[in-house]
Amino acid sequence: MVEAAGAVERTLEAVLPRPVGHHGRVPEAMRYAIFAGGKRLRPFLVLHSARLFGVPDAQSLRAAAAIEALHTYSLVHDDLPAMDDDDLRRGRPTTHRKFDEATAILAGDALLTVAFEILAGRETHPDAEVRCALSLALARAGGSDGMIGGQMMDIVAPTAGYGMDEVVQLQRMKTGALFEFCCEAGALLGQAGPEHQARLRGFARDFGLAFQISDDIIDATGTAESAGKAVGKDQDMGKATLISLHGLEGARAEARRLAHQAAAALDIYGPEADDLRQLPFYLLDRES
Amino acid sequence: MVEAAGAVERTLEAVLPRPVGHHGRVPEAMRYAIFAGGKRLRPFLVLHSARLFGVPDAQSLRAAAAIEALHTYSLVHDDLPAMDDDDLRRGRPTTHRKFDEATAILAGDALLTVAFEILAGRETHPDAEVRCALSLALARAGGSDGMIGGQMMDIVAPTAGYGMDEVVQLQRMKTGALFEFCCEAGALLGQAGPEHQARLRGFARDFGLAFQISDDIIDATGTAESAGKAVGKDQDMGKATLISLHGLEGARAEARRLAHQAAAALDIYGPEADDLRQLPFYLLDRES
Repeated sequence: MVEAAGAVERTLEAVLPRPVGHHGRVPEAMRYAIFAGGKRLRPFLVLHSARLFGVPDAQSLRAAAAIEALHTYSLVHDDLPAMDDDDLRRGRPTTHRKFDEATAILAGDALLTVAFEILAGRETHPDAEVRCALSLALARAGGSDGMIGGQMMDIVAPTAGYGMDEVVQLQRMKTGALFEFCCEAGALLGQAGPEHQARLRGFARDFGLAFQISDDIIDATGTAESAGKAVGKDQDMGKATLISLHGLEGARAEARRLAHQAAAALDIYGPEADDLRQLPFYLLDRES
Repeated sequence: MVEAAGAVERTLEAVLPRPVGHHGRVPEAMRYAIFAGGKRLRPFLVLHSARLFGVPDAQSLRAAAAIEALHTYSLVHDDLPAMDDDDLRRGRPTTHRKFDEATAILAGDALLTVAFEILAGRETHPDAEVRCALSLALARAGGSDGMIGGQMMDIVAPTAGYGMDEVVQLQRMKTGALFEFCCEAGALLGQAGPEHQARLRGFARDFGLAFQISDDIIDATGTAESAGKAVGKDQDMGKATLISLHGLEGARAEARRLAHQAAAALDIYGPEADDLRQLPFYLLDRES
């Protein structure tokens, strides 16, 4: 993922507001949250999906930056005391610990807002229909029936007694919807037809679930030091996860099955899709 | 403002998500916050500005709903304990008091997100360039150099020792930027040229400042009962306001001067603009 990462950082640097004036604390906190050494997984998905349809990185980088801004806002708000109450993120103080809660709320709001500012800008794609399609799809993926709804489901999880269906729905909404958007964005930027959009979403759905299982495994078996954040929280809170439902070995097997299924969906794109196809396996290997 | 209000309510009813499933608490809180008997001032500005350029209400109602959703998110987040810490809004418990903080944060995020979903939808305007222009302008008005930046300036105000310039800048960002967008949206929907956009923005700028002064007067002289929210907070916190800088009578005179200036900007539109032109005077009369 290293190759495109530099270009993603430079794009984020260029599109985010700069800290000036009495309200400079907001851009300062936005930048603190976003330049935290994340792996830029979602931009990677956008760029590599777009390449399948001949879209040059120079064009897909803005869409990639938009989704990274939206993803970062969700981390900033989810870490707040009223939500997951996390002090540590990627080994550093969370935004509300580094600044304060009010600033973290506002910086999150501003990151969400700037995502749509970026998508609406002419530089993102010459065709305004494409820019609108991107905005619409991102708003749905990030909205109350997508990521936000998933976070709500997660918050009520400790007392909700979810079974397998609900846990899968929660993950599909909370993290999967945004992954699906990333891959769909590549097809939208390339003005590929609905069949390609659906295929890329299918890849992302399976990949996203595999990714979530691997995250759960890290939470269940890792240390705070290796994960860069607090671990063991799901178990402590009595939340059902794919591990508590499948067992650890069952979860590992399910993740591997999903990774193979995700990869197979990209067969028709040939070697061009190798980077995307290998990604689920690369992420599964994180935990070992 | 009564005439168009029913249509605004029906549009909001139609475009907002419905409470279903384990995450239904989010749409429930979104609806609680938005259907609170507000005066729908911003939709009024969108609809009447659009009428100047021959845009039928049926078309401008969605843009009006989008901005009302965005405005409502800002109220929900501003009321949070970490921000203004208000228990009462329009005489009812604020969203985080009625639900809880996590739900209020998520409902605010979802209202902000749905605003851009509405604008990107084809039903908002047949020309995608217009929809993108609306999204871009709303993101800028609501972003870190607009409304959010204004709220940040407001939070640091008690210790910042603002003079007249900073207080005017704060108000222009915190409430003025969104008013400017409302009126500009009418010109954008009507595909009027930049000269009309600038004229409508000028009206909104003067109107917005007059409106803010009148709000400050209510805060300084009203009761919680008549205002439907806590009053006297600015004074208690030692914040500079246009009243503390102008004096009460000076502030009243300045508001009236701005109202006349705002009205004059619309002279070229003749009697068609009467409803807009009378609005600043109508709002100034609230306090008496």
